[in-house]
Amino acid sequence: MRNQGLGSWTARRARKSPQATAVIHREQRHGYRELHARTLGRAAQLHAAGLRRGDRVAYLGPNHPAYLETLFAAGMLGAVLVPLNTRLATAELAYCLTDSGSAVLVYTEGYADAARAAAAEVEHAMHLIPAAASVIDEAEFDEPVGLDDPCMILYTSGTTGRPKGVVLSHGNLIWNAINVVVDTDLAHDEVTLVSAPLFHTAALGMTCLPTLLKGGTVVLEETFDEQRALELIARHGVTLLFGVPAMYQRLADAPGFADADLGSIRTLMCGGAPVPRTLIDRYLARGLGFVQGYGLTEASPGTLLLDAQHAVSKAGSAGVPHFFTDVRLVGAGADTDAAASGDAEADAGELRVRGPNVMLGYWGRPQETAQALGDDGWLRTGDLAVADADGYVRIVDRLKDLIISGGENIAPAEVEEVFYRHPAVAECAVIGVPDERWGEVGRAVVVARSTQGLGGAAEAEELAAELIGFAAQQLAKYKVPKSVVFATALPRSGAGKVLKSVLREQHGKP
Amino acid sequence: MRNQGLGSWTARRARKSPQATAVIHREQRHGYRELHARTLGRAAQLHAAGLRRGDRVAYLGPNHPAYLETLFAAGMLGAVLVPLNTRLATAELAYCLTDSGSAVLVYTEGYADAARAAAAEVEHAMHLIPAAASVIDEAEFDEPVGLDDPCMILYTSGTTGRPKGVVLSHGNLIWNAINVVVDTDLAHDEVTLVSAPLFHTAALGMTCLPTLLKGGTVVLEETFDEQRALELIARHGVTLLFGVPAMYQRLADAPGFADADLGSIRTLMCGGAPVPRTLIDRYLARGLGFVQGYGLTEASPGTLLLDAQHAVSKAGSAGVPHFFTDVRLVGAGADTDAAASGDAEADAGELRVRGPNVMLGYWGRPQETAQALGDDGWLRTGDLAVADADGYVRIVDRLKDLIISGGENIAPAEVEEVFYRHPAVAECAVIGVPDERWGEVGRAVVVARSTQGLGGAAEAEELAAELIGFAAQQLAKYKVPKSVVFATALPRSGAGKVLKSVLREQHGKP
Repeated sequence: MRNQGLGSWTARRARKSPQATAVIHREQRHGYRELHARTLGRAAQLHAAGLRRGDRVAYLGPNHPAYLETLFAAGMLGAVLVPLNTRLATAELAYCLTDSGSAVLVYTEGYADAARAAAAEVEHAMHLIPAAASVIDEAEFDEPVGLDDPCMILYTSGTTGRPKGVVLSHGNLIWNAINVVVDTDLAHDEVTLVSAPLFHTAALGMTCLPTLLKGGTVVLEETFDEQRALELIARHGVTLLFGVPAMYQRLADAPGFADADLGSIRTLMCGGAPVPRTLIDRYLARGLGFVQGYGLTEASPGTLLLDAQHAVSKAGSAGVPHFFTDVRLVGAGADTDAAASGDAEADAGELRVRGPNVMLGYWGRPQETAQALGDDGWLRTGDLAVADADGYVRIVDRLKDLIISGGENIAPAEVEEVFYRHPAVAECAVIGVPDERWGEVGRAVVVARSTQGLGGAAEAEELAAELIGFAAQQLAKYKVPKSVVFATALPRSGAGKVLKSVLREQHGKP
Repeated sequence: MRNQGLGSWTARRARKSPQATAVIHREQRHGYRELHARTLGRAAQLHAAGLRRGDRVAYLGPNHPAYLETLFAAGMLGAVLVPLNTRLATAELAYCLTDSGSAVLVYTEGYADAARAAAAEVEHAMHLIPAAASVIDEAEFDEPVGLDDPCMILYTSGTTGRPKGVVLSHGNLIWNAINVVVDTDLAHDEVTLVSAPLFHTAALGMTCLPTLLKGGTVVLEETFDEQRALELIARHGVTLLFGVPAMYQRLADAPGFADADLGSIRTLMCGGAPVPRTLIDRYLARGLGFVQGYGLTEASPGTLLLDAQHAVSKAGSAGVPHFFTDVRLVGAGADTDAAASGDAEADAGELRVRGPNVMLGYWGRPQETAQALGDDGWLRTGDLAVADADGYVRIVDRLKDLIISGGENIAPAEVEEVFYRHPAVAECAVIGVPDERWGEVGRAVVVARSTQGLGGAAEAEELAAELIGFAAQQLAKYKVPKSVVFATALPRSGAGKVLKSVLREQHGKP
């Protein structure tokens, strides 16, 4: 094959494991030979719609076999997939279609109206394709696609300005999958539950593509539901789960959890934030350890990995870089390989990443690309981190989240970790609020585990005082939040990250 | 790290699994942190000896930690390792040193005389370095080495002419290791017995480098001894064995085999030739299946792999290409992707290979390189193969081994496979001998399982007649050897391949 990219994968797997199940979706099993035939059909369909090398094709829909077919078919043609976030409003979808110049849009059942509405707001001509399967195995495409050719554009929800399109090459996504296969023991008979949305890199890069590379099975779910997840684990013998801490919390809180058959599970993979120690312990009690990761869209996304062996001894850390990837900390007095860095907090700096998984750049934005990658290809993550003597990196915060109080730096994540240890706290985020004396002080926004005791202001005040007292026992005085407010939920991005900018708007007044 | 090659591996593993055992040698365990420190020491030593980017450094010695240190240290400096075959005579060693222009030679204990004798025959100045460990961890080397930079030169014992130096890049060896990790379920706790010599690519590429990539343990042995192998399997919990069929035969014939504790073994990997069905069955009786491979030095070496699930249904086949590698058959009426080829024997052709594991070329031989790689980078293997409808490739012979008898092609391997089924046959090779009537006819050279019955010429003649009769029952008449001669052993290359050119000299007269 002249195609060295993702577009060759269905053929490569079909020659190796044609009968093995590639995808389970709505109780239907699709083997690798079938996936290849459907991908060929999709490629023929896209080709007929005028899609050629370098062109962009968007996909609007949930986790569905059509997503994978469209990804691999685009790769066959040397075209570029633009997966759209199904949570976006019409104007935002139209923005992504316009910015990427996507002339073809594949949509699944249920998204026809949204697709038409978005296309109507786009100035260039659009070709809309419903994602009904079209199986053929006579088409032949062997476009000479190399590892450096673009494969995907993923729009990131930046906290300011319009979303930027992250351009990932075939090599970026393939090396990320290789990093995962090297750093975990994914096997050919993996059965991976994919319920996080594939329009983000997390589920795609950390579990879906590595599983397909090995010839395993992905169970595609449109949303995460804890009861259904427990059923699927038992029914399909799921071996690999992926999610954010909140998802694992919901699973552990599900009524059936204590008695559920979890015997097939080999790996729990978690991203978005460090797994709270209490949650680690609850799963350890079921014999299950967490593999934790840190990544970002611009790195396809895998950057740091904390293996299960170190989940307890290095709790709170995001681990060490993936095998073929490097990180270093820059600024705040530090400019070192993370591994070489010694004394922790003193050496906090911005985490930078380099490796074959780091993006080509932002679509049509040479200036932002240059800012992000610099002259040397070291991607700026915008996250502040420290490394311990063993090189284990702890993300202390988004740079912009740092609270500076009386000249002292406060890392909200560190304070939040303390709050999470209190049994009354379900979720917590710490922000800075203006203060006459100290410039800024910390405020904890807390979702209480049970709201029954918070019927009145008096109870809330009592719990707030208790939490502050609890934190004061474990933190330097300047780090202890001066106030606690209660909320029913924390605002989160699609990837599960707390949106601190929104929190500041809601709760940031002095 | 600016170093993206093998020279970065010890640092990459040391940051990830510093305490894990990388190497067991003579009952000594060496962790990854120690391996990295020793490699830094070796790099400092080689640097002090004048070795710089692009220079060649030779290694003369058996499987030994010094081999790995020298390989990785050369990679740190951007220099190129030339592992020497310890079985070579002085003049042949001197030829390799001269041809590669190696100015530095690292040798282990026991090889001082051989190193000095070879160096004395080299016209350029040589720097000899005894491989005593020199551990430091203060040196810093971060040469910007890329995947396309040369890593190794391996001399292949061509059947005609002087040996050629196969130049493998860092990318060649790394992609081969990735192919192995993708296509087998090598885990982070692999314990791999490496008793085949590391100066050939087979043991290096198929087991040693993939195991180190995953963070597993290699048990380095200088030679294969079946009793000691059984001991080591039990003592260290060996999970992965690698060898040629003859080695597995010896292991199965060892007195302790039936009672040996083989419970730790996950994978038996075999190369050099298809595993005879009888041997497959003997190991299956112990619950162990074979992963079989076909490769050549020029492909780093992995090309085809037959997984354990297909060992019986596709017995005799070498499998399908590794995930990131492609093959096709060219000539004799065929020029197709192996996977697309239909009816078997009619489509026999020369096996060609393309992929990121295919060599840069032959050292200092642009003409031979162009011959081997052509315009399109499809490596000529010189092996004749057929593919079945599922794309499984069977090597029918070296092109030059083909016997042409009365206009019919005879594949010696096919005839040999029949002879191996006879209980009296321990080893067998079939060659062509001149014949007035047919041009050429087959002759079987047989090593009998027991020589007790062959005391006299009469007994030998009787067995020869029996074998010919046995073969005649299973083969077309023109394929049946017209004569059988007996030998006490077959001449084999270091990699275990039968040297048919030698056989022809010894037994090829009409």
